[in-house]
Amino acid sequence: MEAAVRVIARNGVRGLRVEELAAEAGVSTALIYYHFKDRAGLVRRTLAFISDRATGYTDEALADTEDARTVLLQLLLGELQDLPRVRENSIAWGELRASAVFDADLRAALAESTRSWSQDAAEAVSAAQAAGLADLRAAPLDVAERLTALVEGLSERWLSGSVTLDRARELLTGAVDAELGPRPPLAE
Amino acid sequence: MEAAVRVIARNGVRGLRVEELAAEAGVSTALIYYHFKDRAGLVRRTLAFISDRATGYTDEALADTEDARTVLLQLLLGELQDLPRVRENSIAWGELRASAVFDADLRAALAESTRSWSQDAAEAVSAAQAAGLADLRAAPLDVAERLTALVEGLSERWLSGSVTLDRARELLTGAVDAELGPRPPLAE
Repeated sequence: MEAAVRVIARNGVRGLRVEELAAEAGVSTALIYYHFKDRAGLVRRTLAFISDRATGYTDEALADTEDARTVLLQLLLGELQDLPRVRENSIAWGELRASAVFDADLRAALAESTRSWSQDAAEAVSAAQAAGLADLRAAPLDVAERLTALVEGLSERWLSGSVTLDRARELLTGAVDAELGPRPPLAE
Repeated sequence: MEAAVRVIARNGVRGLRVEELAAEAGVSTALIYYHFKDRAGLVRRTLAFISDRATGYTDEALADTEDARTVLLQLLLGELQDLPRVRENSIAWGELRASAVFDADLRAALAESTRSWSQDAAEAVSAAQAAGLADLRAAPLDVAERLTALVEGLSERWLSGSVTLDRARELLTGAVDAELGPRPPLAE
């Protein structure tokens, strides 16, 4: 799976060939067909792997976070980091998103991964509201779908050289403030 | 140029071959090389054409709009319409964005088109503020970069089947409200 993400991040998903993946992973093409049945199965499993891995590194970014509003922000900013793993994952995610426009087989799995990500973000919005750190008029799922779609838009701009990483992170931080309202002053 | 957008919208930019374009446009490959020099020149000119055409149909969407805040909203919603021309243009734009991740030659032109689009949106934000229809604390260029990046994110989700067009338009409308603050009551 790691080899598949590397190959996609290097050549795009439409450049993904089972032969190249076999070489990258140091295994036979037969083994890849045995595990994934066909190229479509391989691409779907790679999508699931990318989603899980993103959950992993955004969870790491949360390790020292206690405040519910910061949890939401870090969950989103976790996707905009100049780390090889994040960059590779983001390129592969963008590739799968762009390919799904042309490849109907990918769409259901991608919609499900997207829904799950938005759901996690919506729970973080609700938690921030419960903690008194976000405007109660914000509709959690609406806010979550917008913020995750914005992460995708900013990520593609970053990876394609239309915005710097720092600017993308600054814009995303501003979006959280616009959506949740100003952060209330510290209670103590 | 119209033929080039059709070919990209059908097969992706990485599937764009000069031979196929020549067949689609009903001209010789020699004529295409004469006009665009090489494939990279062709892709850059197609990007410029897509940007101009988007300005055309978003301007049309504005024809009957007088209120400065509605101008901004329509400028953005103009990219999320179920019209063949808009869909084709959006697919091609998304393809150029995704390709630029792998193709450094495209990046400068894409960054310039992106900057120009954000600038137009920033002017619409400023006009809404001047008309008393938007919170003066909103920073026009920040808001504009966020809203246009959100349009890209939502557009890709729509085209790849992760969100319906109606939901994408509803989310975008909500983002404008979150960024500009609630619309003040009518003056009369």
